[in-house]
Amino acid sequence: MTTSTHETEITADPDIPLVRITREFDAPPEKVFRAHTDPELVARWLGPRRHEMRVEHYDCRTGGSYRYLHVSDGNEFAFHGCFHEVRPSELIVQTFTFEGFPDDVALERLVFEDLGDGRTRLTSTSLVDSFEGRDAFLAGGMEDGVRQGYERLDELLAG
Amino acid sequence: MTTSTHETEITADPDIPLVRITREFDAPPEKVFRAHTDPELVARWLGPRRHEMRVEHYDCRTGGSYRYLHVSDGNEFAFHGCFHEVRPSELIVQTFTFEGFPDDVALERLVFEDLGDGRTRLTSTSLVDSFEGRDAFLAGGMEDGVRQGYERLDELLAG
Repeated sequence: MTTSTHETEITADPDIPLVRITREFDAPPEKVFRAHTDPELVARWLGPRRHEMRVEHYDCRTGGSYRYLHVSDGNEFAFHGCFHEVRPSELIVQTFTFEGFPDDVALERLVFEDLGDGRTRLTSTSLVDSFEGRDAFLAGGMEDGVRQGYERLDELLAG
Repeated sequence: MTTSTHETEITADPDIPLVRITREFDAPPEKVFRAHTDPELVARWLGPRRHEMRVEHYDCRTGGSYRYLHVSDGNEFAFHGCFHEVRPSELIVQTFTFEGFPDDVALERLVFEDLGDGRTRLTSTSLVDSFEGRDAFLAGGMEDGVRQGYERLDELLAG
């Protein structure tokens, strides 16, 4: 099985401080969803290749929470949030903070759409409370990290 | 001690889909904060007077979650969310959904500001992902419920 290289579309909404990320995967929604909820799987793809991910806790259910670190060249970057709602194979609504900017909180919504033939479209939106914060996030090189993460997820799903 | 009648300011942000609510209380931040985190106290003031509040769970700590019902004339209205961050006497960041509209999620931030002399300013913001949703929420009579709730909180703090 060859690893596909679907395009990751990342767009800034013109009207509200939101980023929208769309990506297709050659795996059914159940499998893509599980790669987002099982911490052992999440740790194998979330983030850029050069980072090692250390999960402190990752309780992906409605009312649960998470905290993890990305470690790179001895530097640690910590992230945390809570899971507002988790609907199996359909939806995850969660919050997200990079602890380097502890007062910045994003509300994230991940929608898993069944495209048939074992394919899934994942649409992820990230809402923050200012256009400045949103645009700084986009300018900070997050796009490469997202694309690399999804390439790693392709490899995991193909494995 | 007389119950004060501070004004509740409710404003719709012109640039982003956010509602901002500001209210002063004649009590120190520690006391106003505790009335937001102790479920037995929350149940005595949150919402309009005509509603009875039934707390299913209310675990107000970073990574916790809540679900409660407002009961009025035999009708039940359920709400749930998770607590992204709770900093004692300073800050609560949480999510909020009225289960009648289960796909609508608000990101709420409550800031407790010490004004000295045993007084507190509470600024609460509620961020959603569309202006239509925000304006429908405002048009739905939430303002009366918020004002009544804060009058009840005045009474609780004075008691």
